[in-house]
Amino acid sequence: MTVWEAIQKRFSVRQYQERPVESEKLDRVLEAARLAPSAGNRQEWRFVVVTDADMRSALVAAANGQRFVGEAAVVIAACAVGTDHVMPCGQLSYPIDVAIALEHIALQATEEGLGTCWIGAFNEDRVKELLSIPESVRVVELMTLGYPAISGGAKDRLQQQEIVMYEGWRD
Amino acid sequence: MTVWEAIQKRFSVRQYQERPVESEKLDRVLEAARLAPSAGNRQEWRFVVVTDADMRSALVAAANGQRFVGEAAVVIAACAVGTDHVMPCGQLSYPIDVAIALEHIALQATEEGLGTCWIGAFNEDRVKELLSIPESVRVVELMTLGYPAISGGAKDRLQQQEIVMYEGWRD
Repeated sequence: MTVWEAIQKRFSVRQYQERPVESEKLDRVLEAARLAPSAGNRQEWRFVVVTDADMRSALVAAANGQRFVGEAAVVIAACAVGTDHVMPCGQLSYPIDVAIALEHIALQATEEGLGTCWIGAFNEDRVKELLSIPESVRVVELMTLGYPAISGGAKDRLQQQEIVMYEGWRD
Repeated sequence: MTVWEAIQKRFSVRQYQERPVESEKLDRVLEAARLAPSAGNRQEWRFVVVTDADMRSALVAAANGQRFVGEAAVVIAACAVGTDHVMPCGQLSYPIDVAIALEHIALQATEEGLGTCWIGAFNEDRVKELLSIPESVRVVELMTLGYPAISGGAKDRLQQQEIVMYEGWRD
């Protein structure tokens, strides 16, 4: 699958088949994250991969009751270590670096015939407690991963001329 | 090019040919960003695309003197509007959403035979002044885009077992 096709095809999958994810596919998806760029090659990302059904069920409550979190074969807690580095532009490195790596997972998953969903609606303390994640580590996002039970529709997006400006800002 | 190949092939390109980027390629690259996912589909991203040579030269000084910023045919200022939204997990939406869209640009660019470099080393106020970007808007990252004048080497990364943990955190 080309990058272009994967970008068109990726959508937020909130219904999954029970079918487990093959370990070769999971490995490639995680390898895609590993190769991502990061600020000064810091690679602050850490991924806690959850396949245990009881733990996935427990994560549902920590993720504001979103039931599909328990239905997907895999839930990935995308974490960051060393979270105090600020780039000269004023942005913290870690949310950006983790986001880049996690979108590599989403696009590689699409190529593998898998679906994903970014999840920012969760209680970080609850997730950390469940997964024994140390206090100093941040859980930036959760992502479900599994075989989709639905197909994606058209994407509801702003038009290109609403988000792109040439040579300088214009209102 | 497959997603897998693009992820292997992408590297931080800091030397560019003088050759301009065709408008169809630039359009597809920006379209890849437009289709990215964002928290609650907020799409806070805005992209200021700079091709003017004088402006690119001016951006060099704003980007800590990094000369390749003036050599790449295109510099994209990846901005965010509505920067106060915090997800239930405690993270600001905008750096993550902009990062996702910008990595779509990097991967689509790779497929188009183009190179990119993420740039966090810049003075945000200087960039905003140069590009007439309003005070309320954040410039999250700059990205150069153009035909590479060099090839990438092997990637220096942590091993998968150093960044991936199964079922819970382990030290």
